[in-house]
Amino acid sequence: MGSLEVERKTTGWAARDPSGILSPYNYTLRNTRPEDVYIKVISCGICHTDLHQVKNDLGMSNYPMVPGHEVVGEVVEVGSDVTKFKAGDVVGVGCLVGCCRKCRPCEADIEQYCNKKIWSYNDVYTDGKPTQGGFAGAMVVDHKFVVKIPDGMSPEQAAPLLCAGVTVYSPLSHFGLKKSGLRGAILGLGGVGHMGVKIAKAMGHHVTVISSSNKKREEALEHLGADEYLVSSDAAKMQEVADSLDYIIDTVPVFHPLEPYLSLLKVDGKLILMGVINTPLQFVTPMVMLGRKMITGSFIGSMKETEEMLEFCKEKNLSSMVEVVKMDYVNTAMERLEKNDVRYRFVVDVAGSKLDA
Amino acid sequence: MGSLEVERKTTGWAARDPSGILSPYNYTLRNTRPEDVYIKVISCGICHTDLHQVKNDLGMSNYPMVPGHEVVGEVVEVGSDVTKFKAGDVVGVGCLVGCCRKCRPCEADIEQYCNKKIWSYNDVYTDGKPTQGGFAGAMVVDHKFVVKIPDGMSPEQAAPLLCAGVTVYSPLSHFGLKKSGLRGAILGLGGVGHMGVKIAKAMGHHVTVISSSNKKREEALEHLGADEYLVSSDAAKMQEVADSLDYIIDTVPVFHPLEPYLSLLKVDGKLILMGVINTPLQFVTPMVMLGRKMITGSFIGSMKETEEMLEFCKEKNLSSMVEVVKMDYVNTAMERLEKNDVRYRFVVDVAGSKLDA
Repeated sequence: MGSLEVERKTTGWAARDPSGILSPYNYTLRNTRPEDVYIKVISCGICHTDLHQVKNDLGMSNYPMVPGHEVVGEVVEVGSDVTKFKAGDVVGVGCLVGCCRKCRPCEADIEQYCNKKIWSYNDVYTDGKPTQGGFAGAMVVDHKFVVKIPDGMSPEQAAPLLCAGVTVYSPLSHFGLKKSGLRGAILGLGGVGHMGVKIAKAMGHHVTVISSSNKKREEALEHLGADEYLVSSDAAKMQEVADSLDYIIDTVPVFHPLEPYLSLLKVDGKLILMGVINTPLQFVTPMVMLGRKMITGSFIGSMKETEEMLEFCKEKNLSSMVEVVKMDYVNTAMERLEKNDVRYRFVVDVAGSKLDA
Repeated sequence: MGSLEVERKTTGWAARDPSGILSPYNYTLRNTRPEDVYIKVISCGICHTDLHQVKNDLGMSNYPMVPGHEVVGEVVEVGSDVTKFKAGDVVGVGCLVGCCRKCRPCEADIEQYCNKKIWSYNDVYTDGKPTQGGFAGAMVVDHKFVVKIPDGMSPEQAAPLLCAGVTVYSPLSHFGLKKSGLRGAILGLGGVGHMGVKIAKAMGHHVTVISSSNKKREEALEHLGADEYLVSSDAAKMQEVADSLDYIIDTVPVFHPLEPYLSLLKVDGKLILMGVINTPLQFVTPMVMLGRKMITGSFIGSMKETEEMLEFCKEKNLSSMVEVVKMDYVNTAMERLEKNDVRYRFVVDVAGSKLDA
């Protein structure tokens, strides 16, 4: 364990340019400030956003970039102001590592909507240095952005909950949908969608998976436990489901028509968008007015919701479906993720990859 | 006062064809059934929807058609099951006169979202006969769809509340916005918009009127009591208001971009659409996701909300701005309404027009 005076080095796997290819990269971590937690990374999930970031798809990437924002690790050392964690605790870090603490969202504990939030990687920290993510041996993170992983939950199971999990939990909780007996649908069955099915089922909902093809029918019904599977091009079946859903979690990340889905919603039903789509989506106003339907969206979740969600998953014994890989497989994993060739989340066994050995 | 056995006739002003020109028309009202209220009409507001209906703009008009759905009248006789009203009471009738009473919206007292709702006119009643509206000497209406006008509220003041009033009151109440200290905006200053300013101000909100030009600035600030006036093409001013509004009531009835308005909303802000627009409106998903903003709409209001709204307006001493006309002016009034040449609602003095004399 290092003292405050020692310069801490770690090894991450970083992208160097928009090819997005990751390779080992050594860098220095900051010393533990009073509010910081020094964490040895155990597991880190691979999210679709990581793919966009390493390839500069959003045009805002800085290199070298160590991605990874579904991080589970073990606490090695804590700063003097940290009381919530101690060495040896298993903890998680998600998409964010900083916020302003003064704005309305920060004061309302929804710091994910702070305009000055700091991302876990590809951002600049308060010390002026680049933030680097969880595909690395270690991280130093402000304790506000660290959560305890419940006892008995395995690191590789917990990792995808820290982004994909809270991303679906947050709107269900916020929009008053965390109660049993509701009918919901998950549109699109990727990393977030599969977690949506699991979490909605654990909340006691009747869950329909809506997809553009029949390819994932068996998967959805038999492995994920969905109640129904609906192919969006099947007009007769879509008509049968009309006016019946309390909500749809729409994870589709590309342009798609909204009206077929709006018509599935009951009065006061909610269409919750999760995919960042820069091509405008469209709707005609009577589709929302005549039924007081709501088109909304949500962005990850707060630290408070992350804690609640982890407890909820622990209580419900909810497990994610993951494929665990070593770090030297990460480039292949990214390629496979790009082709949606994963059920449903890659998790890198960082500790087992001995980066800092 | 007629007995149950007498055939009741009345005179309305009806459109006969899509020219929309109204002229006197005699027809028979049904006898008072146990649940019915027989009402002599005193005042009736003219709404933009009346214009669309008489001209068959929606392609669903049947003639002869007596329009009018902002009706205030005096009770002449009640059926044997009616306990809420008695002869002499001043009452109101709005857009609806029937619903199924069995569906989820009906059971939740939001019968305006019932798929089998019956409109006050241009619809078919349970007896198979056409419904006819309030531009007539009298109406017979099921007591469920009749509300008491609070003592001391004048009929011509109350009339516009029964459609325009409840149309803005309902979403403010439903979406948790009926509390002081909020910042809201009204987009478009017609019949519904002017009522929006009045009701939002009475709720204790800071109200901004947003318009495409400066034409209504003085009107909005000096006569309606709005706090600010914003011209949507003034990019600098729009930027100043960014991220500041709890809600926008959007009454614009034609295609318009949503993004300039979404950007004015705070985190969790609500864009509430009131205009029936069959050209698709557009938005990009980050505009709603990064701020958990909501695009929704609302359609008139329930009978329960109509009662609440009337009490609210009475309590707040809220008055609408109306121009009272006689029935023989109705065709001119409709022409002027089409050109938005009215501040802000025409109300026909039906009783003073002596239709059934």
